[in-house]
Amino acid sequence: MTAYRPGLHLLSTFASTPDCLTNVGGCQATFNRLIDALTLTKVGEVYHVFPNGGFTAVVCLTESHVSIHTWPELGIATFDVFLSNYLKDNTAKTQQFYRDVLTYFEATELSKQELNR
Amino acid sequence: MTAYRPGLHLLSTFASTPDCLTNVGGCQATFNRLIDALTLTKVGEVYHVFPNGGFTAVVCLTESHVSIHTWPELGIATFDVFLSNYLKDNTAKTQQFYRDVLTYFEATELSKQELNR
Repeated sequence: MTAYRPGLHLLSTFASTPDCLTNVGGCQATFNRLIDALTLTKVGEVYHVFPNGGFTAVVCLTESHVSIHTWPELGIATFDVFLSNYLKDNTAKTQQFYRDVLTYFEATELSKQELNR
Repeated sequence: MTAYRPGLHLLSTFASTPDCLTNVGGCQATFNRLIDALTLTKVGEVYHVFPNGGFTAVVCLTESHVSIHTWPELGIATFDVFLSNYLKDNTAKTQQFYRDVLTYFEATELSKQELNR
Protein backbone atom coordinates (compact mmCIF):
# COMPACT_ATOMS: atom_id res chain seq x y z
CA MET A 1 0.00 0.00 0.00
CA THR A 2 1.27 3.47 -0.89
CA ALA A 3 2.14 5.57 2.13
CA TYR A 4 -0.06 8.54 2.85
CA ARG A 5 1.66 11.89 2.44
CA PRO A 6 -0.18 14.56 4.39
CA GLY A 7 -1.10 17.73 2.55
CA LEU A 8 -1.03 21.31 3.75
CA HIS A 9 -4.35 22.85 4.83
CA LEU A 10 -4.23 26.61 5.44
CA LEU A 11 -7.12 28.27 7.26
CA SER A 12 -7.53 32.02 7.53
CA THR A 13 -9.81 34.53 9.13
CA PHE A 14 -9.17 37.92 7.59
CA ALA A 15 -10.63 41.42 7.53
CA SER A 16 -11.43 42.98 4.16
CA THR A 17 -13.42 45.76 2.56
CA PRO A 18 -17.20 45.72 2.00
CA ASP A 19 -16.54 45.90 -1.76
CA CYS A 20 -14.39 42.77 -1.79
CA LEU A 21 -16.59 40.88 0.66
CA THR A 22 -19.64 41.37 -1.58
CA ASN A 23 -17.94 40.84 -4.95
CA VAL A 24 -18.64 37.20 -5.65
CA GLY A 25 -17.67 37.59 -9.30
CA GLY A 26 -14.27 38.98 -8.40
CA CYS A 27 -13.66 36.16 -5.95
CA GLN A 28 -14.69 33.52 -8.49
CA ALA A 29 -12.43 35.07 -11.15
CA THR A 30 -9.54 35.10 -8.69
CA PHE A 31 -10.05 31.45 -7.71
CA ASN A 32 -10.30 30.45 -11.39
CA ARG A 33 -7.20 32.41 -12.32
CA LEU A 34 -5.20 30.73 -9.54
CA ILE A 35 -6.55 27.26 -10.36
CA ASP A 36 -5.36 27.76 -13.94
CA ALA A 37 -2.04 29.35 -13.02
CA LEU A 38 -1.21 26.57 -10.56
CA THR A 39 -2.48 23.82 -12.92
CA LEU A 40 -4.99 22.52 -10.40
CA THR A 41 -8.02 20.53 -11.55
CA LYS A 42 -11.48 21.80 -10.67
CA VAL A 43 -14.26 19.20 -10.70
CA GLY A 44 -17.11 21.38 -9.45
CA GLU A 45 -17.98 24.52 -7.53
CA VAL A 46 -20.78 26.23 -5.65
CA TYR A 47 -21.11 30.00 -5.20
CA HIS A 48 -24.06 31.20 -3.15
CA VAL A 49 -24.86 34.88 -2.53
CA PHE A 50 -26.81 35.97 0.54
CA PRO A 51 -29.34 38.82 0.46
CA ASN A 52 -26.84 41.25 2.02
CA GLY A 53 -24.23 40.51 -0.66
CA GLY A 54 -22.07 38.23 1.45
CA PHE A 55 -21.31 34.92 -0.16
CA THR A 56 -20.23 31.39 0.58
CA ALA A 57 -18.36 29.21 -1.86
CA VAL A 58 -16.70 25.83 -2.13
CA VAL A 59 -14.55 24.65 -5.00
CA CYS A 60 -13.94 20.94 -5.35
CA LEU A 61 -10.54 20.03 -6.79
CA THR A 62 -9.04 16.65 -7.55
CA GLU A 63 -6.32 17.87 -5.16
CA SER A 64 -8.91 18.56 -2.37
CA HIS A 65 -10.78 21.88 -1.94
CA VAL A 66 -10.99 25.63 -1.45
CA SER A 67 -13.72 27.38 0.55
CA ILE A 68 -14.65 30.90 1.57
CA HIS A 69 -17.42 32.43 3.63
CA THR A 70 -17.75 36.22 3.81
CA TRP A 71 -19.60 38.36 6.33
CA PRO A 72 -19.61 41.93 5.01
CA GLU A 73 -21.66 43.03 8.01
CA LEU A 74 -18.72 41.99 10.20
CA GLY A 75 -15.98 42.98 7.77
CA ILE A 76 -14.43 39.50 7.70
CA ALA A 77 -14.14 36.21 5.86
CA THR A 78 -13.00 32.69 6.64
CA PHE A 79 -10.98 31.05 3.88
CA ASP A 80 -9.47 27.57 3.44
CA VAL A 81 -7.20 26.00 0.89
CA PHE A 82 -6.26 22.34 1.21
CA LEU A 83 -4.22 20.52 -1.44
CA SER A 84 -3.24 16.93 -0.85
CA ASN A 85 0.22 15.66 -1.71
CA TYR A 86 -1.11 12.39 -3.06
CA LEU A 87 0.35 12.56 -6.56
CA LYS A 88 2.99 15.23 -5.92
CA ASP A 89 4.02 17.78 -3.33
CA ASN A 90 1.57 20.69 -3.57
CA THR A 91 2.82 22.59 -0.53
CA ALA A 92 4.16 25.53 -2.52
CA LYS A 93 0.94 25.79 -4.52
CA THR A 94 -1.11 25.85 -1.32
CA GLN A 95 1.02 28.68 0.05
CA GLN A 96 0.84 30.66 -3.18
CA PHE A 97 -2.94 30.22 -3.48
CA TYR A 98 -3.32 31.46 0.08
CA ARG A 99 -1.08 34.50 -0.41
CA ASP A 100 -2.69 35.52 -3.68
CA VAL A 101 -6.23 35.27 -2.33
CA LEU A 102 -5.33 37.46 0.65
CA THR A 103 -3.70 39.95 -1.72
CA TYR A 104 -6.82 40.06 -3.90
CA PHE A 105 -8.98 40.72 -0.83
CA GLU A 106 -6.59 43.44 0.43
CA ALA A 107 -6.79 41.34 3.56
CA THR A 108 -5.66 41.98 7.08
CA GLU A 109 -4.94 38.54 8.45
CA LEU A 110 -6.65 38.02 11.80
CA SER A 111 -5.68 34.38 12.23
CA LYS A 112 -3.83 31.75 10.22
CA GLN A 113 -3.70 28.07 10.99
CA GLU A 114 -1.48 25.57 9.21
CA LEU A 115 -2.30 21.89 9.39
CA ASN A 116 -0.53 18.96 7.80
CA ARG A 117 -3.13 16.27 7.40
CA MET B 1 -21.26 46.21 14.12
CA THR B 2 -22.22 42.77 15.38
CA ALA B 3 -19.39 40.92 17.08
CA TYR B 4 -18.02 37.86 15.31
CA ARG B 5 -18.65 34.61 17.13
CA PRO B 6 -16.18 31.97 15.97
CA GLY B 7 -17.59 28.65 14.86
CA LEU B 8 -16.26 25.16 15.46
CA HIS B 9 -14.34 23.52 12.60
CA LEU B 10 -13.57 19.82 13.11
CA LEU B 11 -11.03 18.13 10.84
CA SER B 12 -10.47 14.38 10.78
CA THR B 13 -8.24 11.88 9.10
CA PHE B 14 -9.72 8.44 9.58
CA ALA B 15 -9.25 4.87 8.38
CA SER B 16 -12.24 3.05 6.90
CA THR B 17 -13.15 0.05 4.77
CA PRO B 18 -12.79 -0.12 0.99
CA ASP B 19 -16.56 -0.53 0.73
CA CYS B 20 -17.27 2.70 2.60
CA LEU B 21 -14.47 4.65 0.93
CA THR B 22 -15.88 3.86 -2.53
CA ASN B 23 -19.58 4.25 -1.70
CA VAL B 24 -20.28 7.80 -2.80
CA GLY B 25 -24.04 7.22 -2.70
CA GLY B 26 -23.90 6.06 0.89
CA CYS B 27 -21.83 9.08 1.88
CA GLN B 28 -24.18 11.47 0.11
CA ALA B 29 -27.21 9.87 1.76
CA THR B 30 -25.52 10.15 5.15
CA PHE B 31 -24.65 13.82 4.65
CA ASN B 32 -28.20 14.57 3.45
CA ARG B 33 -29.75 12.71 6.38
CA LEU B 34 -27.63 14.68 8.85
CA ILE B 35 -28.29 18.00 7.13
CA ASP B 36 -32.02 17.33 7.45
CA ALA B 37 -31.84 15.97 11.00
CA LEU B 38 -29.81 18.95 12.20
CA THR B 39 -31.92 21.46 10.22
CA LEU B 40 -28.95 22.81 8.31
CA THR B 41 -29.44 24.55 4.96
CA LYS B 42 -27.67 23.17 1.90
CA VAL B 43 -27.16 25.61 -0.96
CA GLY B 44 -25.15 23.38 -3.28
CA GLU B 45 -22.91 20.34 -3.45
CA VAL B 46 -20.32 18.62 -5.61
CA TYR B 47 -19.62 14.88 -5.57
CA HIS B 48 -16.85 13.65 -7.87
CA VAL B 49 -15.87 9.99 -8.24
CA PHE B 50 -12.36 8.99 -9.34
CA PRO B 51 -11.69 6.01 -11.62
CA ASN B 52 -10.65 3.83 -8.65
CA GLY B 53 -13.92 4.52 -6.81
CA GLY B 54 -12.51 7.05 -4.37
CA PHE B 55 -14.42 10.29 -4.24
CA THR B 56 -14.15 13.91 -3.25
CA ALA B 57 -17.09 16.02 -2.16
CA VAL B 58 -17.92 19.45 -0.85
CA VAL B 59 -21.29 20.55 0.49
CA CYS B 60 -21.97 24.25 0.75
CA LEU B 61 -24.23 25.24 3.64
CA THR B 62 -25.52 28.63 4.68
CA GLU B 63 -23.79 27.70 7.96
CA SER B 64 -20.43 27.08 6.16
CA HIS B 65 -19.38 23.71 4.68
CA VAL B 66 -18.67 19.99 4.84
CA SER B 67 -15.97 18.25 2.79
CA ILE B 68 -14.58 14.76 2.37
CA HIS B 69 -11.83 13.21 0.27
CA THR B 70 -11.39 9.43 0.25
CA TRP B 71 -8.36 7.36 -0.79
CA PRO B 72 -9.48 3.73 -0.89
CA GLU B 73 -6.02 2.71 -2.09
CA LEU B 74 -4.66 4.05 1.22
CA GLY B 75 -7.65 3.06 3.35
CA ILE B 76 -8.24 6.59 4.60
CA ALA B 77 -10.28 9.76 4.24
CA THR B 78 -9.97 13.39 5.28
CA PHE B 79 -13.22 14.94 6.49
CA ASP B 80 -14.19 18.46 7.61
CA VAL B 81 -17.29 19.97 9.11
CA PHE B 82 -17.40 23.69 9.84
CA LEU B 83 -20.56 25.43 11.06
CA SER B 84 -20.41 29.11 11.92
CA ASN B 85 -22.14 30.48 14.98
CA TYR B 86 -23.29 33.57 13.17
CA LEU B 87 -27.03 33.25 13.76
CA LYS B 88 -26.91 30.76 16.64
CA ASP B 89 -24.52 28.44 18.42
CA ASN B 90 -24.02 25.42 16.17
CA THR B 91 -21.27 23.78 18.24
CA ALA B 92 -23.38 20.79 19.28
CA LYS B 93 -24.52 20.24 15.68
CA THR B 94 -20.92 20.28 14.45
CA GLN B 95 -19.97 17.67 17.03
CA GLN B 96 -22.95 15.46 16.21
CA PHE B 97 -22.35 15.69 12.46
CA TYR B 98 -18.74 14.68 13.02
CA ARG B 99 -19.60 11.73 15.28
CA ASP B 100 -22.33 10.40 13.00
CA VAL B 101 -20.17 10.55 9.88
CA LEU B 102 -17.40 8.63 11.60
CA THR B 103 -19.95 6.07 12.78
CA TYR B 104 -21.31 5.66 9.26
CA PHE B 105 -17.78 5.08 7.94
CA GLU B 106 -16.98 2.58 10.73
CA ALA B 107 -14.02 4.87 11.14
CA THR B 108 -10.85 4.50 13.11
CA GLU B 109 -9.87 8.07 13.92
CA LEU B 110 -6.24 8.73 13.02
CA SER B 111 -6.26 12.44 13.83
CA LYS B 112 -8.78 15.02 14.97
CA GLN B 113 -8.24 18.75 15.04
CA GLU B 114 -10.63 21.24 16.60
CA LEU B 115 -10.46 24.87 15.59
CA ASN B 116 -12.58 27.77 16.73
CA ARG B 117 -12.46 30.28 13.93
